[in-house]
Amino acid sequence: MKKQFIVDFKKRDEIVDDLFAVKNKESPRSYKNGTMFTLTVSDKTGETMLNFFGGDKKTETYAIYSSFEVQDVIHIKGKTDDYRGPISMSVNMDSGQIKKVDEFNMEDFMPMTKKDVIKMKEDFMSIISQVGNVDIKRLLLHIFDENFMKEYSKAAAASSNHHNFGGGLLEHVLSMIRIAERVVEMHPELDKDLLIAGCIVHDIGKVKELKVKTAIDYTTEGHFIGHISMGQKIVTDAIESLENFPELLKYKIIHMILSHHGQKDWGSPVEPLLPEAVALHHIDNLDSKIQNILQQKEKADKSDKWLMNRGWPTLYLD
Amino acid sequence: MKKQFIVDFKKRDEIVDDLFAVKNKESPRSYKNGTMFTLTVSDKTGETMLNFFGGDKKTETYAIYSSFEVQDVIHIKGKTDDYRGPISMSVNMDSGQIKKVDEFNMEDFMPMTKKDVIKMKEDFMSIISQVGNVDIKRLLLHIFDENFMKEYSKAAAASSNHHNFGGGLLEHVLSMIRIAERVVEMHPELDKDLLIAGCIVHDIGKVKELKVKTAIDYTTEGHFIGHISMGQKIVTDAIESLENFPELLKYKIIHMILSHHGQKDWGSPVEPLLPEAVALHHIDNLDSKIQNILQQKEKADKSDKWLMNRGWPTLYLD
Amino acid sequence: MKKQFIVDFKKRDEIVDDLFAVKNKESPRSYKNGTMFTLTVSDKTGETMLNFFGGDKKTETYAIYSSFEVQDVIHIKGKTDDYRGPISMSVNMDSGQIKKVDEFNMEDFMPMTKKDVIKMKEDFMSIISQVGNVDIKRLLLHIFDENFMKEYSKAAAASSNHHNFGGGLLEHVLSMIRIAERVVEMHPELDKDLLIAGCIVHDIGKVKELKVKTAIDYTTEGHFIGHISMGQKIVTDAIESLENFPELLKYKIIHMILSHHGQKDWGSPVEPLLPEAVALHHIDNLDSKIQNILQQKEKADKSDKWLMNRGWPTLYLD
Amino acid sequence: MKKQFIVDFKKRDEIVDDLFAVKNKESPRSYKNGTMFTLTVSDKTGETMLNFFGGDKKTETYAIYSSFEVQDVIHIKGKTDDYRGPISMSVNMDSGQIKKVDEFNMEDFMPMTKKDVIKMKEDFMSIISQVGNVDIKRLLLHIFDENFMKEYSKAAAASSNHHNFGGGLLEHVLSMIRIAERVVEMHPELDKDLLIAGCIVHDIGKVKELKVKTAIDYTTEGHFIGHISMGQKIVTDAIESLENFPELLKYKIIHMILSHHGQKDWGSPVEPLLPEAVALHHIDNLDSKIQNILQQKEKADKSDKWLMNRGWPTLYLD
Amino acid sequence: MKKQFIVDFKKRDEIVDDLFAVKNKESPRSYKNGTMFTLTVSDKTGETMLNFFGGDKKTETYAIYSSFEVQDVIHIKGKTDDYRGPISMSVNMDSGQIKKVDEFNMEDFMPMTKKDVIKMKEDFMSIISQVGNVDIKRLLLHIFDENFMKEYSKAAAASSNHHNFGGGLLEHVLSMIRIAERVVEMHPELDKDLLIAGCIVHDIGKVKELKVKTAIDYTTEGHFIGHISMGQKIVTDAIESLENFPELLKYKIIHMILSHHGQKDWGSPVEPLLPEAVALHHIDNLDSKIQNILQQKEKADKSDKWLMNRGWPTLYLD
Amino acid sequence: MKKQFIVDFKKRDEIVDDLFAVKNKESPRSYKNGTMFTLTVSDKTGETMLNFFGGDKKTETYAIYSSFEVQDVIHIKGKTDDYRGPISMSVNMDSGQIKKVDEFNMEDFMPMTKKDVIKMKEDFMSIISQVGNVDIKRLLLHIFDENFMKEYSKAAAASSNHHNFGGGLLEHVLSMIRIAERVVEMHPELDKDLLIAGCIVHDIGKVKELKVKTAIDYTTEGHFIGHISMGQKIVTDAIESLENFPELLKYKIIHMILSHHGQKDWGSPVEPLLPEAVALHHIDNLDSKIQNILQQKEKADKSDKWLMNRGWPTLYLD
Repeated sequence: MKKQFIVDFKKRDEIVDDLFAVKNKESPRSYKNGTMFTLTVSDKTGETMLNFFGGDKKTETYAIYSSFEVQDVIHIKGKTDDYRGPISMSVNMDSGQIKKVDEFNMEDFMPMTKKDVIKMKEDFMSIISQVGNVDIKRLLLHIFDENFMKEYSKAAAASSNHHNFGGGLLEHVLSMIRIAERVVEMHPELDKDLLIAGCIVHDIGKVKELKVKTAIDYTTEGHFIGHISMGQKIVTDAIESLENFPELLKYKIIHMILSHHGQKDWGSPVEPLLPEAVALHHIDNLDSKIQNILQQKEKADKSDKWLMNRGWPTLYLD
Repeated sequence: MKKQFIVDFKKRDEIVDDLFAVKNKESPRSYKNGTMFTLTVSDKTGETMLNFFGGDKKTETYAIYSSFEVQDVIHIKGKTDDYRGPISMSVNMDSGQIKKVDEFNMEDFMPMTKKDVIKMKEDFMSIISQVGNVDIKRLLLHIFDENFMKEYSKAAAASSNHHNFGGGLLEHVLSMIRIAERVVEMHPELDKDLLIAGCIVHDIGKVKELKVKTAIDYTTEGHFIGHISMGQKIVTDAIESLENFPELLKYKIIHMILSHHGQKDWGSPVEPLLPEAVALHHIDNLDSKIQNILQQKEKADKSDKWLMNRGWPTLYLD
Repeated sequence: MKKQFIVDFKKRDEIVDDLFAVKNKESPRSYKNGTMFTLTVSDKTGETMLNFFGGDKKTETYAIYSSFEVQDVIHIKGKTDDYRGPISMSVNMDSGQIKKVDEFNMEDFMPMTKKDVIKMKEDFMSIISQVGNVDIKRLLLHIFDENFMKEYSKAAAASSNHHNFGGGLLEHVLSMIRIAERVVEMHPELDKDLLIAGCIVHDIGKVKELKVKTAIDYTTEGHFIGHISMGQKIVTDAIESLENFPELLKYKIIHMILSHHGQKDWGSPVEPLLPEAVALHHIDNLDSKIQNILQQKEKADKSDKWLMNRGWPTLYLD
Repeated sequence: MKKQFIVDFKKRDEIVDDLFAVKNKESPRSYKNGTMFTLTVSDKTGETMLNFFGGDKKTETYAIYSSFEVQDVIHIKGKTDDYRGPISMSVNMDSGQIKKVDEFNMEDFMPMTKKDVIKMKEDFMSIISQVGNVDIKRLLLHIFDENFMKEYSKAAAASSNHHNFGGGLLEHVLSMIRIAERVVEMHPELDKDLLIAGCIVHDIGKVKELKVKTAIDYTTEGHFIGHISMGQKIVTDAIESLENFPELLKYKIIHMILSHHGQKDWGSPVEPLLPEAVALHHIDNLDSKIQNILQQKEKADKSDKWLMNRGWPTLYLD
Repeated sequence: MKKQFIVDFKKRDEIVDDLFAVKNKESPRSYKNGTMFTLTVSDKTGETMLNFFGGDKKTETYAIYSSFEVQDVIHIKGKTDDYRGPISMSVNMDSGQIKKVDEFNMEDFMPMTKKDVIKMKEDFMSIISQVGNVDIKRLLLHIFDENFMKEYSKAAAASSNHHNFGGGLLEHVLSMIRIAERVVEMHPELDKDLLIAGCIVHDIGKVKELKVKTAIDYTTEGHFIGHISMGQKIVTDAIESLENFPELLKYKIIHMILSHHGQKDWGSPVEPLLPEAVALHHIDNLDSKIQNILQQKEKADKSDKWLMNRGWPTLYLD
Repeated sequence: MKKQFIVDFKKRDEIVDDLFAVKNKESPRSYKNGTMFTLTVSDKTGETMLNFFGGDKKTETYAIYSSFEVQDVIHIKGKTDDYRGPISMSVNMDSGQIKKVDEFNMEDFMPMTKKDVIKMKEDFMSIISQVGNVDIKRLLLHIFDENFMKEYSKAAAASSNHHNFGGGLLEHVLSMIRIAERVVEMHPELDKDLLIAGCIVHDIGKVKELKVKTAIDYTTEGHFIGHISMGQKIVTDAIESLENFPELLKYKIIHMILSHHGQKDWGSPVEPLLPEAVALHHIDNLDSKIQNILQQKEKADKSDKWLMNRGWPTLYLD
């Protein structure tokens, strides 16, 4: 368990001796005493710059630089510095240390949902158990087995913008389902089971698109294929492994995934052709846009009255 | 009470003797026996063409043509016809009649909400009575007195697209409020009273923008000023007639009205600067888009499998 | 084999006695002598209107109307007519006949490629046999077995715009490959095998998206899923059935399919991230845009100097 | 009256002892000798950076920092500095001083119109006196009384881009009126009085939208409501305080304000529906775009041949 | 001189015996008695349909059809008809006649400016004579010699939208110059001579782009090259025929032509890089948009209150 | 011949004594010892910063600053420096030197095509000699005489993005021609000679639009007129100097130049109206987009896996 967090460093020359995640690496370069390199390191409270000064030990400096990768966790021994800007860190080859570690608590590095994950998983499984359409229900039970739920409940809903934290996907999906239930009350012509299923699977591809370790990052497959097509694949395979799944229902469920961005220029290869797909898109949009602006407000400097973007206000902060 | 409805005419030469609304007028023109004119007439079940044949009585034909306006109700005596296309009507100067009437049931001509209006009004007033913020509450009670509620509860939410029927505005607002309540449960950082107030007043200008008589039509003021600015005026005047209304709250409520279209190119002169304004825009969008597609589906020809638009499918109808 | 083609009818009252495809159906309606319906019928030379007059035999007329579907072929006995506009057909219940048939030559109804299909298939298989990358080669050989080639070589590349005829997909793909080979000569940094594979599979989903029988029409799956995602599925399944297929290569090939529309607003869920994907998109665009304008020119009225669209010229025809 | 202007400082270690406006504040931070903060200060000739070094007097430094706000004027005693970049200022807690003052000449800080404001006000009132339409005339005389003219003649037409200086609104409006008079000569079908009235009131909301003190800044109301809706309110209230103002004329004048941005995506909630509204929009556009580019040219570095923006030329400067 | 104008025909079976312009031709087709064709004919008061019935004289009918072209003037002998819609004409092979004529007054067919052309030409030459810059002045005098003025003063400024009548170009240019003079008074930093020259030459290519005979039509060169590039060519050639014309001034004048549409997507290959080019674009836009809406208002049906476009009002007509 | 290249400097205090091109100049400014100025200097291997320290010799420093211009080559005597960031240079008034030189090898400063220019010129002339259409052939032979070929073969195809090096235009045109030949094989309806001519002349204006000396820079004419209009002028003049050149062919060739950007918003004043113009646009697009992405890949940091742009991947680099 970490004891030192970035947000707590306040002045130079404090001792640093704890774990931090590597967010970014800059190749080693010369400085007046020899070879150095710079990292961006992070934990769940923020990020800062770290300078490693290797002196004339060029080979060793390169070796240390190569001993870890972005997203790894390293044990840093050094001290704080305040060379230009906020409190940073510095490590000297001789007096300090950088060393990769394999054991750490993800919660120390990644922001996590503030909701109770166990409770959310129970709610989620309970919703599935109440689905009336037997085909939809057996499909969801087939996909969301215990193993998959482990991954699904840790996933983030995005790498930035909204719900960009561990458990964010599950939190977002549950919020969407609760809104969807109310929408169906107001518009009972909608097929509730199809809409709930859409909420559940619409972003299922995110589980593989985004790698969540000490930060949220895209996988190679994620960049090349994208979560919409990855989700389509996961659900189509699941359906095809079931016997006698109705063909039209298969098309409709896959269509919910493919069309949930609502328009081609927002990344949906097909646009909504079902009232439930229209509803899904707008419920997703509603929940994520609200979450996005609430996160912006929470993160903003409380002494400002307006959040500005390119000279124009985008949010009132008072 | 009307007895004959357009949808029920099935063949030519049936007797027509009932009230119909004038939807469109075409100026009188010549035909082989003299002067005639053509109207589009409507009731709540549909619309059809009517030909009035004046023979050589040109002056009288013009006089009859001028005796009523679009949106008026006329008593027609004539017969059905089937000259090209669906069943139409024809009236002969000598044997038939067209005469404006002033008394009629709006419900015979205008499609009306299928919900119970009295129940909706009760729900609406009950929601206002539960608003916690005293300033918002006294503002809403001030605006929504008995007189205003009469107009408000007859108003349509749009002239086409969605909720384009008498009582549609109230139905839409109540649906939005129920969704908003659920959204606040999921995102308790939102100011519920402000959001509910936004739902209630966002389209209040529609009451004056749209004239609802035998059809939904724009008023002169509606075209020139638009419901967003008309709503701003109604609510600003109400606020200014109250004592000691907090200035910042005044700006926020007006801002909810002005920004509820979400973007400038959708007609909002300012864009949402409050989380509640973001939520209001998306709740409005969600409810109206779902209603729109459900109305399209209900209206569509049931024998088609897809609703097509310029050669592309926009809705699956099965 | 058909003997009468639509383009050859020149005047009214010619005898009609041959097979035609049903392109469109309008529900039966009344006329002065009873019940009638109207069809659009087609063969490879064009399309025209057909009126069926059932007289007072309403039930039988409805029965005949229901005895065939769009895309079916019917045997028509009647005569030509010229009631307003070009030569049409009419059939009388008593003297004529409409009857669905099951055996016909697709070539009589569907426009087909003017190229030699057998030669094109040989060229195509020869190209596959020359692919250097062993994984790409075994994948292509696995997909394009004899059975699949039967379907693939009959497919159209689009329902309108370009190569909208039987064999059009194969013709388009071969043209793209020949251009791609030249492009690789000029830009040898490109991975030729990957680019050729991209040309071959980019529209493979069209085989299932479009139903080609007596016309090109979208399947239900085609509308809901779209050819890009359907192609992704076909190729991913094929890859997963092979042993030890390199993972990165799998992502690249699927990426070629997904990104080949070049931009999100043109329907690609991901945008090109490989030089070969950029090349594929532009080669596809080049070949289809040229084919499109050449087809427009071929089809245009030769007596006009300019093809006009909404009052503006879009093509010089001289 | 100020004697020292920012543009005149040329080297380090000059004595600074005069008034400057606070343009921006950065929260106090640590430096090697204790606590410091940085301001951006300005006068009408430009702006520069000021560093305040508080040494170990942290509390006092925070107190000084809190003793003034952005847009305030402060009396600075310190010296010039040239630490990186152009001439800046520095103040030492011990030897120097920062102190808010309440009396100052706005002209020392805000750029002001180069035109003669008294002459412009006379011209403006003379134009109103010549309006022929009695209703428009009494409305304008009612709004533009002596008190309002004081504010109106100090207002800026924008916070940036064009006429962004005190008196800029009046200068812009007079220029528009002179152009409008010529436009009416060339197109006598236009209603001159309505067009002149439109020029006069189109940006009247700017008087309240923008706060002009030592800089041009948006008010809270300005951000939430915007000058178009604020102008609508000012003029509607004025009209409603007059007796028997013609209703149609009221709609037209308000419409001129609402539609003067010309398109929804440029912030007009309704688009021009009158020839005079079309004219107003284009006259406004013409005058402001010319002023904008002339201001850019005046401000540009005279040694450059082209003004560049993201690598592309936007203005020839020779 | 024509005596019969289309607008004056009021009923069927009036004798037609006068000249009309051919606006459109439809290829001959069959009718029950043989071969017929249909024309759209026009004069300055409007246009109507003409049916020519050739009976069984197929060859002669084709010969007559081929004896004239669109934009030709023909002498028609026939009578009026009212087969569906407004008053049309019909000509019988035996009793009537269609014959091309070569002599006619352009004014009978083409709408012409209502201004005095001789006076406009004098004003125009007087403006040129007052240009101060000697190079600009000798260029304009070189281009606008007597011959060119004949063409220039007959030219239209557009084929539709605004100033689409003979003399329209000159009328538009003079209006622009008068506005430009006022703009320079308000913004004396502008180079007046360059701006006036820009007004004069900006649309000079229209003289060759549009053929004005009995209607305004594009020439082949006009479609392929466009008036902007054609104007560039005319003025560049003129400059190159003068000795010692300053090179920078040459670039500026050509730039005024090329950039006067203001943006690439409005057809300018380069965007304005001079304050005068910015001014020219907006003056052109201002004058043409006002003229456009005034022409729409003049042409509109006076009994309507609003001009509608796709269901939305675009102009108030009262 | 240069011996020292920017890419080879590795540490501070190396001796600099060689030629470099001036890429950018910043006006002289004060520093603690007097007057200095900063340049960006370049050669074909890259660019770096140079600081010139003039001490108290202000006048001489200004004189040296004014003795050369951007794009000039200067002889620098000084040493390397590493004040913040990569290796830069510094020159001292007393110990060093900056001196403009007039003789240098363009190849030392400008990146040049890697292809054999002599071979490319031969191929190019051979292609012209094989053109079948005699008018097109004599036009091309007229334009591409020995003198013009000297300029044409040194020209770049763009200032950035693709083929932005000496000889790039010729390399791009040859690549387009080879692709065009293949396209004509696949679509023999195209007019090969017209298409080849289009490839050859489409960017001919670049020869004068871009000045290629030690860098690629726009000329004054290039900014004001643009290469499309400049090319139109070159080719129109050439055609008009030939006798009896067919008028329609003239329009078509000029149209190929004007329309080759494909759309108005991409800078074409007219859009493609010929199949060959459609083909030309897409061949140009294909070749330049591939070249662009291959150049990006070549230039990218090889240790990155993805090329990122504003946080999104645009190219896979592995």
